[in-house]
Amino acid sequence: MDAIDVITTKRDGGELSPDQIDWVVDAYTRGAVADEQMAALCMAVVWRGMTRAEVSRWTEAMLGSGERLDLPGLSRPTTDKHSTGGVGDTITLPLTPTVVACGAAVPQLSGRGLGHTGGTLDKLESIPGWRAELGTDEMRRALTDVGGVVCAAGAGLAPADRKLYALRDVTGTVESVPLIASSIMSKKLAEGTASLVLDVKVGSGAFMKDTAAARELARTMVDIGADHGVRTTALLTAMDTPLGHEVGNALEVAEAVRVLSGGGPHDMVELTVTLAREMLDAAGLGGAKDPADALRDGTAMDAWRRMVRAQGGDPDAPLPAAREKRDILVPATGRLTRLDAHAVGIAAWRLGAGRARKEDPVSHAAGVTLHAKPGDEVRAGRPLLTLYTDDPERLDPSAAALADGFEVDGPDASLPLVIDRIVP
Amino acid sequence: MDAIDVITTKRDGGELSPDQIDWVVDAYTRGAVADEQMAALCMAVVWRGMTRAEVSRWTEAMLGSGERLDLPGLSRPTTDKHSTGGVGDTITLPLTPTVVACGAAVPQLSGRGLGHTGGTLDKLESIPGWRAELGTDEMRRALTDVGGVVCAAGAGLAPADRKLYALRDVTGTVESVPLIASSIMSKKLAEGTASLVLDVKVGSGAFMKDTAAARELARTMVDIGADHGVRTTALLTAMDTPLGHEVGNALEVAEAVRVLSGGGPHDMVELTVTLAREMLDAAGLGGAKDPADALRDGTAMDAWRRMVRAQGGDPDAPLPAAREKRDILVPATGRLTRLDAHAVGIAAWRLGAGRARKEDPVSHAAGVTLHAKPGDEVRAGRPLLTLYTDDPERLDPSAAALADGFEVDGPDASLPLVIDRIVP
Repeated sequence: MDAIDVITTKRDGGELSPDQIDWVVDAYTRGAVADEQMAALCMAVVWRGMTRAEVSRWTEAMLGSGERLDLPGLSRPTTDKHSTGGVGDTITLPLTPTVVACGAAVPQLSGRGLGHTGGTLDKLESIPGWRAELGTDEMRRALTDVGGVVCAAGAGLAPADRKLYALRDVTGTVESVPLIASSIMSKKLAEGTASLVLDVKVGSGAFMKDTAAARELARTMVDIGADHGVRTTALLTAMDTPLGHEVGNALEVAEAVRVLSGGGPHDMVELTVTLAREMLDAAGLGGAKDPADALRDGTAMDAWRRMVRAQGGDPDAPLPAAREKRDILVPATGRLTRLDAHAVGIAAWRLGAGRARKEDPVSHAAGVTLHAKPGDEVRAGRPLLTLYTDDPERLDPSAAALADGFEVDGPDASLPLVIDRIVP
Repeated sequence: MDAIDVITTKRDGGELSPDQIDWVVDAYTRGAVADEQMAALCMAVVWRGMTRAEVSRWTEAMLGSGERLDLPGLSRPTTDKHSTGGVGDTITLPLTPTVVACGAAVPQLSGRGLGHTGGTLDKLESIPGWRAELGTDEMRRALTDVGGVVCAAGAGLAPADRKLYALRDVTGTVESVPLIASSIMSKKLAEGTASLVLDVKVGSGAFMKDTAAARELARTMVDIGADHGVRTTALLTAMDTPLGHEVGNALEVAEAVRVLSGGGPHDMVELTVTLAREMLDAAGLGGAKDPADALRDGTAMDAWRRMVRAQGGDPDAPLPAAREKRDILVPATGRLTRLDAHAVGIAAWRLGAGRARKEDPVSHAAGVTLHAKPGDEVRAGRPLLTLYTDDPERLDPSAAALADGFEVDGPDASLPLVIDRIVP
């Protein structure tokens, strides 16, 4: 087998054979195929795409590059959710304990944030004492004892994806549906879940800006799941404006706790309940307890507190608060028609909530509070947004990111919260 | 400036700015842009192509990466020829002294062969004592004293191209008209010639298999030449069957000497004279001595002998001869309608005339003699081809390459020797 043959096959619009895919992914992981060869192949994939057979095999090859978590002996069916990332997307925090409270086990491997979207692990690390890094045994124990775990993926899971992602990041080859889908699915299949629900975000604050591209990504991932015997469904959901009213690590944890207390913003509650029902259906627990009841009756909150404690966190400890704040005022009385997710994400990132390079630390206290959402009536001079940071020099650049980020009495172009549902 | 911006601009179908091109070529040459980034960019260029402005600037940037030969003080106008390579393409050997004999100076930087096409330097090295590696001063002296020089390009000329070509070779990105055209033209412009004639080969034995692709390559190179103030014309010429009757290093030198003696095969004489007239026209010497006369009256042969001696060679020394030979016989009496250039090239390569890797040596004695050419009447049982080698184990694999390489009384699909002429 020869790397140049594999590259030119794809370059000329051909379909890679299973042997070619197995060989090139393995040889790249071992270092026998050079970075420049894989980069050329990735650009050819951006150009030519992949068939369903190719992308399933590619995912399988990445999965085969590392260990696969084995979750036998659990008394409950496993299910997981993956979101493609957005601004204020705190859903994992109330969702996981809610689904646990309704009878499923949730082995959730999460990541950290990069750029304007936050990472679930960064958010949870706002909780004093909470640890993201668990060994495989600790993870199994948390699943058995508590039913849910949210932790960092170990280096042994899908190492091909880890190496390939770093390469794509510097070679302009991130934007490819088959490469994105296989990257996500290789990690999710490696964690050993029996069913999976995908939350594919669409809009200015999401990686996918338009519905057609998001639908193609969702369909590709659902197909990969089906080809691997994992029951997978996907929802396309809106990310034109942030979810909930808080953007930033500790701010979002506090908001998640409000949802788990039976309160919280309408859109977060709706998306938590919708995704929880999908996960329970996928796990074969459709007739069991309803997630809305678990939020109302305190059982979801109980599960949250057990999960936080199992990973060393103190659910009663105060969360970090910022030293500096600034209000951004409503410019005119009327109806707020646009509050752009991307602008708010950049503002929160500039306040310190996110990182520019993966080795940077994040500020847990920094972020943005939204006092109104699109559709709300607002009054001139009242606060629309509040910026929080520990570093006053970050306030001006953050406010600048919001200059064109909202509109009163403009055209109404809001997306519905749940845009579409993709099933196998 | 950022490599990812440059890559994604081209990936998304945009035009690279002059600043982007200058930066990325320079940064790659310095090592500040990584091989994997340049590989992704090259694949994006294979996909999206380049505009005339882009390819001219790209060539200029590669030219700017190294030194440029300066040829002042020559009393004669300079002109050069470049061939895109073929089987039995010995034309440089009789052509250069013929043009010198007619009054021009020819500073020809040549390469070695790789794969089934031979390299001019490998051929000339069959001549005992002849040296390809000259310093800049030696090269200038040969041009002043003799009027012509054929030597290896120094490492200082277009180093960006040297690095980029090695990268393209292993990443499936050789097949791109703008990348091929800029690679050739950056080297030719660096050698400082005032005018240039391109011999773009078309057919089974050439890099370009069809006329449309060859015409596009020729047009692109002629435009680059015009944009750099070098008068450039191109001929598209046939490479469906080998040129002349000899394929192999010493065999081709002997055939070139026959042409310089006023004999030799018709197609080689015709192409030598046609290209020589183009070069003399381009050099502004169109009304001077005619190349056909220079071949007839011995002045081209005199120039050849001076050129060989100036580089340490002995024009009277016997050329290496092979120890083993085998005839391939005519299968049926009739008219030879096909003798495939690619098949003969592979056969000669397997006999030892070419190399598989650039560090391999070549056999000077190995090669193939053609006893007939397409259009000739042939008789069953007579020799059609003779294979020469020093290693008898190479005869069977070489003969196997020819199994489907010729046909008697088949359809006549020969190309005319000169297919088209491309001018600025």
